[in-house]
Amino acid sequence: MDAALLQEVLVRFLAEELRASGLSGYVIGLSGGVDSAVSAALAARAVGADRLSCLALPGPTSSNESLDHARLVAEAFALNLEVVDLSAAALAIAETLCAGDHQLRFGNVMARLRMIALFDRARRDNLLVAGTSNKSEILLGYSTLFGDSASSANPLGDLWKTHIFELARHLGVPEAVVAKPPTADLWPGQTDAGELGYDYLVADPILYRHHELGWERDELIAAGFSAVLVEAVLAAYRRNRFKWRPTTVARVSASAINVDRILPRNPR
Amino acid sequence: MDAALLQEVLVRFLAEELRASGLSGYVIGLSGGVDSAVSAALAARAVGADRLSCLALPGPTSSNESLDHARLVAEAFALNLEVVDLSAAALAIAETLCAGDHQLRFGNVMARLRMIALFDRARRDNLLVAGTSNKSEILLGYSTLFGDSASSANPLGDLWKTHIFELARHLGVPEAVVAKPPTADLWPGQTDAGELGYDYLVADPILYRHHELGWERDELIAAGFSAVLVEAVLAAYRRNRFKWRPTTVARVSASAINVDRILPRNPR
Repeated sequence: MDAALLQEVLVRFLAEELRASGLSGYVIGLSGGVDSAVSAALAARAVGADRLSCLALPGPTSSNESLDHARLVAEAFALNLEVVDLSAAALAIAETLCAGDHQLRFGNVMARLRMIALFDRARRDNLLVAGTSNKSEILLGYSTLFGDSASSANPLGDLWKTHIFELARHLGVPEAVVAKPPTADLWPGQTDAGELGYDYLVADPILYRHHELGWERDELIAAGFSAVLVEAVLAAYRRNRFKWRPTTVARVSASAINVDRILPRNPR
Repeated sequence: MDAALLQEVLVRFLAEELRASGLSGYVIGLSGGVDSAVSAALAARAVGADRLSCLALPGPTSSNESLDHARLVAEAFALNLEVVDLSAAALAIAETLCAGDHQLRFGNVMARLRMIALFDRARRDNLLVAGTSNKSEILLGYSTLFGDSASSANPLGDLWKTHIFELARHLGVPEAVVAKPPTADLWPGQTDAGELGYDYLVADPILYRHHELGWERDELIAAGFSAVLVEAVLAAYRRNRFKWRPTTVARVSASAINVDRILPRNPR
């Protein structure tokens, strides 16, 4: 991987998407994790830190460490960081839906409430929402539909987590952020690896061979990957595939939207 | 339009999507309007009313008439209807975001909060969310991204509003619901026509010729459509096109998700 070239491509992507939209800048949710740090650093290079609004969006179960790390990232790249505490709103939604006692449902509420906060800010200030979902978590389905996976322009969606770590170090993301275990921070002690059962660095070589090269279970095991690991990764890949294309539309005409004619997001 | 054939196609679509998902049924938000009434009537025929959960999701500015009409629809098709009042949660979000005084931002909050309620119910009871967005409103961009436009399976997304009215009468949707002016019911007195500046029945012939047949401004006007109307419809079509494909991902590999390989939602 050529980190300098990758950075250049992604910076140009973000600059061009903003130009084509006609809007004023980007807004991004800074979680304190490595993905949003990389996305923010790229956006700041693309359009200038003065046209980038960073929001930290803690909820009732967010760790203080996450907020500290978001502040560390903001300092490292001279970004404006505003903290909007979503705790009261999250608890009000959970109470209405009787979802407070169910960890996963409450996690989904938090992720979608963050989406609401980011797109509301985008609307208020004429901004695009910069995305932070990477290819590894999209393929494993480790995201909330219409929550953390929702954005306007996502520089990271085709990047393996393995490469995000490399790009983060190249960009100068603080080592405390790069080195810590990835977490969605939706409940205390949560880590991606704890929930998935494996690290991204271990899953990526399997995902790459399966998704890009078409290797199936037996070929992967014959190549030396552990059978337990291969089966766990492929099961998540299959089980969550619906998230790649969340809405199916019944086609009844000669030109269903986005099925027959894939158009650019904006006329250029 | 052959209403009986269209009904049959859409009923089969909903039955097949549920089968392929392996889930237990559908959940739908009944707004009291004609789109959700048609979608619910189709879903009830497809999988049985006992496998369809209907939620009425009023907010602080919803009209009582909307709730009455949702009840009328539920009675007409013997549907289970549960009312979940989202007012307290909506006000808590609006207060956190300081969005309460801004009609359009509050409307977006309401639409997205309804999405949260529907997908939370889907998660709780292993359901798919049935969609209610039609082709006319999608093409005109008259919807909230990740709000009312978000669903799992949408039987109406390729249907013109003109045809929804016909299908509604064929299905036996109560006339009070079919005949009233369409409204998103996000604030008192709101109607789609009031915001768009024209009725769907007037816009549909222009949208059809532009989107499906490729007619441009001058051809439409030469064919006898009013210039003011043509320009208003085409402007909305262009301005909101970003909503058809909300997220752009930077492509850096040989197989970006959903760009190079369009896969079915679930392996069949």
